[in-house]
Amino acid sequence: MPLVDLDRFDFLYANRVKGMKSSATRDLMATLSRPGIISLAGGFPDTRVFGEEAFREISANVAADSAQALQYGPTSGLEGIKDVIVDVMEAEGTRAYAEDIFLTTGAQQGLDLVGKVFLDEGDAVLCEGPSYVGALNAFAAYRPRILHVPMDRAGMIPSAAREALKKARKQGIHVKFIYTVPNFQNPAGVTLAAERRLELLEIAREYDLVILEDNPYGMLRFEGEPAPTIASLEQRSGETDRVIYLGTFSKIFAPGVRLGWVHAQPGILHKINIGKQGADLCSSNLSQMLIHSYFKHADWRAYVKRLTLLYKERRDAMLDSLAEFMPNEVHWTHPEGGLFVWATLPSYIDATAMLPRAVAKNVAYVPGEGFYANGTGKNCMRLNFSFVEPDKIRRGIELLAEVVRERMELRGDLERGSRTGDRLGERRSSSAVGTDRR
Amino acid sequence: MPLVDLDRFDFLYANRVKGMKSSATRDLMATLSRPGIISLAGGFPDTRVFGEEAFREISANVAADSAQALQYGPTSGLEGIKDVIVDVMEAEGTRAYAEDIFLTTGAQQGLDLVGKVFLDEGDAVLCEGPSYVGALNAFAAYRPRILHVPMDRAGMIPSAAREALKKARKQGIHVKFIYTVPNFQNPAGVTLAAERRLELLEIAREYDLVILEDNPYGMLRFEGEPAPTIASLEQRSGETDRVIYLGTFSKIFAPGVRLGWVHAQPGILHKINIGKQGADLCSSNLSQMLIHSYFKHADWRAYVKRLTLLYKERRDAMLDSLAEFMPNEVHWTHPEGGLFVWATLPSYIDATAMLPRAVAKNVAYVPGEGFYANGTGKNCMRLNFSFVEPDKIRRGIELLAEVVRERMELRGDLERGSRTGDRLGERRSSSAVGTDRR
Repeated sequence: MPLVDLDRFDFLYANRVKGMKSSATRDLMATLSRPGIISLAGGFPDTRVFGEEAFREISANVAADSAQALQYGPTSGLEGIKDVIVDVMEAEGTRAYAEDIFLTTGAQQGLDLVGKVFLDEGDAVLCEGPSYVGALNAFAAYRPRILHVPMDRAGMIPSAAREALKKARKQGIHVKFIYTVPNFQNPAGVTLAAERRLELLEIAREYDLVILEDNPYGMLRFEGEPAPTIASLEQRSGETDRVIYLGTFSKIFAPGVRLGWVHAQPGILHKINIGKQGADLCSSNLSQMLIHSYFKHADWRAYVKRLTLLYKERRDAMLDSLAEFMPNEVHWTHPEGGLFVWATLPSYIDATAMLPRAVAKNVAYVPGEGFYANGTGKNCMRLNFSFVEPDKIRRGIELLAEVVRERMELRGDLERGSRTGDRLGERRSSSAVGTDRR
Repeated sequence: MPLVDLDRFDFLYANRVKGMKSSATRDLMATLSRPGIISLAGGFPDTRVFGEEAFREISANVAADSAQALQYGPTSGLEGIKDVIVDVMEAEGTRAYAEDIFLTTGAQQGLDLVGKVFLDEGDAVLCEGPSYVGALNAFAAYRPRILHVPMDRAGMIPSAAREALKKARKQGIHVKFIYTVPNFQNPAGVTLAAERRLELLEIAREYDLVILEDNPYGMLRFEGEPAPTIASLEQRSGETDRVIYLGTFSKIFAPGVRLGWVHAQPGILHKINIGKQGADLCSSNLSQMLIHSYFKHADWRAYVKRLTLLYKERRDAMLDSLAEFMPNEVHWTHPEGGLFVWATLPSYIDATAMLPRAVAKNVAYVPGEGFYANGTGKNCMRLNFSFVEPDKIRRGIELLAEVVRERMELRGDLERGSRTGDRLGERRSSSAVGTDRR
């Protein structure tokens, strides 16, 4: 093959691809599946739990209808799966109607389609800070401004959201929607408090905009009381209007089937339908029928329960080992469910620059800056606990703590060096390390 | 549920959705699956041929690796399936390299991603006239100008393509790529002659643009000599540079798995990779592994052969019955493969307006105007022969001919009426019908 100049067609590419970046996790995927690496980087559910036997059963059930499973389907999805989704949403207290449900190729496609339908260049989206990198990537194709709203332990701070909206209005920037992952947020692991959900709804009414509620993890709760979905809160007021709800089978069944859904009012779904036709015509009938077969014939609630117990054990392993191994200067969130912990390192540590060293030591994470559109978050990292066994999590965090400590010591050396004129290369021995432990 | 004003959020929608229309075929899908309707409207392969047993086998093969099948996969696709694609492309004479292959959620997503990567608002795409409606829908999201190039029996006319490019250049319009379905085109059923493929490549070099070669049907050839793919013609010159080749498993395996691919040079694939991450993260591992299992362990060439023989029989039924039933004023193409015949009615007949009458008589087709971005093609229709048995095709064409004849007679009445002052409602008896037959 001839050598190819990667910039050969730069004059032909659309402007939008200049604003789009690749997800660090996705790019690292090959490296991270290297044997020996403890990857806390992915966002993988543990699909080993499902089991060969259950897979055999559901695919055997579909075989009799293979002609339909292998055929094109309606753009909005098959009717049977919509009934399943009504049940799933009911389990989280949201009363859904089949006609308000629209199937997508994973919830990721829902994000893309909502961007396609709402965002003109220069429009704005209010996002949590940090926010899900996949959403930022999806929106980036439509060249919006991302306005990050700070979070605390109770999620996005409503007064800060109001402030951002007021400022945007003053500047003539059209904010089209608020994007939130209310439960066990990706990447921060925090949950939006119930009263804040109501307040966000009020804010959306006040500013006449839409809320995009992305809820992949809600059913994976380890402890505490579930907060009502924003969609259900809106319904209690008698409306299905401005909340666009995104659901997915990726976390309660499996991501390999690439199936999610949008629940919204018909006017919005009509636009989404047109967007989906251009994007990929329809979602896989086969995936829809496999899921239908499982959710109708098996005890899916018990399966979700099994996953939840498994992930809880792993979260505990992660929180315990963080407390045991990490220096005092490192802080992290305490998720009540989901897949992720968000850790904040001392501000002088660049988690992106540190990653190669961590990978060399056989542990990986996702650097924080990808979860912001504005370059902040450099000293943060997302840690995944759903895919790795507890003992490996423990070992991974131990290794990671060593890498962090190295950086901190290097910084200490540098500071002392600049004070005393010592040579940079002269490292102090790590005698004081033990005292840093919590 | 509360009544919803469909235009409630018009002020929030992006400008692009105003330029996007829904595909007539997709919208009609529910109506057309009504029992009793003979639908010549779809673009369905006949997935009944695959068979329950084969389905059972391939899914049983995948069961042992169900944890991987159910998991997220790499954005560009699994390695195993790329080897399968190398074989498939080889079967059409194109030497592909696994690293130049990128999996997509159907070839439709390939169209969307190419649009995303290349098209800024106001850029242009050179398309055949008529062109595949799904491509027009995909591109529409990026708001380009569509420049239709006329076709004859040998496909897109190169001199007309040159003319259009010259004119665009004069007007300061940036044409980013030429889009072509070279084999048994959807919807026209015509094939681009080999010498024209070379000429298109020359034109692309001359104007420094890309060719998007969309080849879903190439292997479904009933007769005649295969023409080399444009990608292979470029390779013979020692390059993989400006041809972006789209392939799909939808027609040689099944559309229900939603799996296609892009074959292009690394610079372009890098941009497509970023676009795909935002669009749906990755294609289904499950689909990829099912296909891998089939193509590696079964005689897929024999299966394609079976499909080809079946579709040939149906095409023959369609051509024969068109000749038998249609009035002399109707013309149609003679595809050497694929799924579609394109019929042209007398210029005064509006095929869109005629469709409800046809559906009332239990036959359906796709009106031609959807295949043009400029409102032409109103007196044309796309007829699909791959999904319906020969006797039903025969009956369908007979019914359709009756509807066409009705329109022609109505026109005759109107003309006579305007000449003689007869009342509009007074229809002549159809005594002369027989003489119209070919």
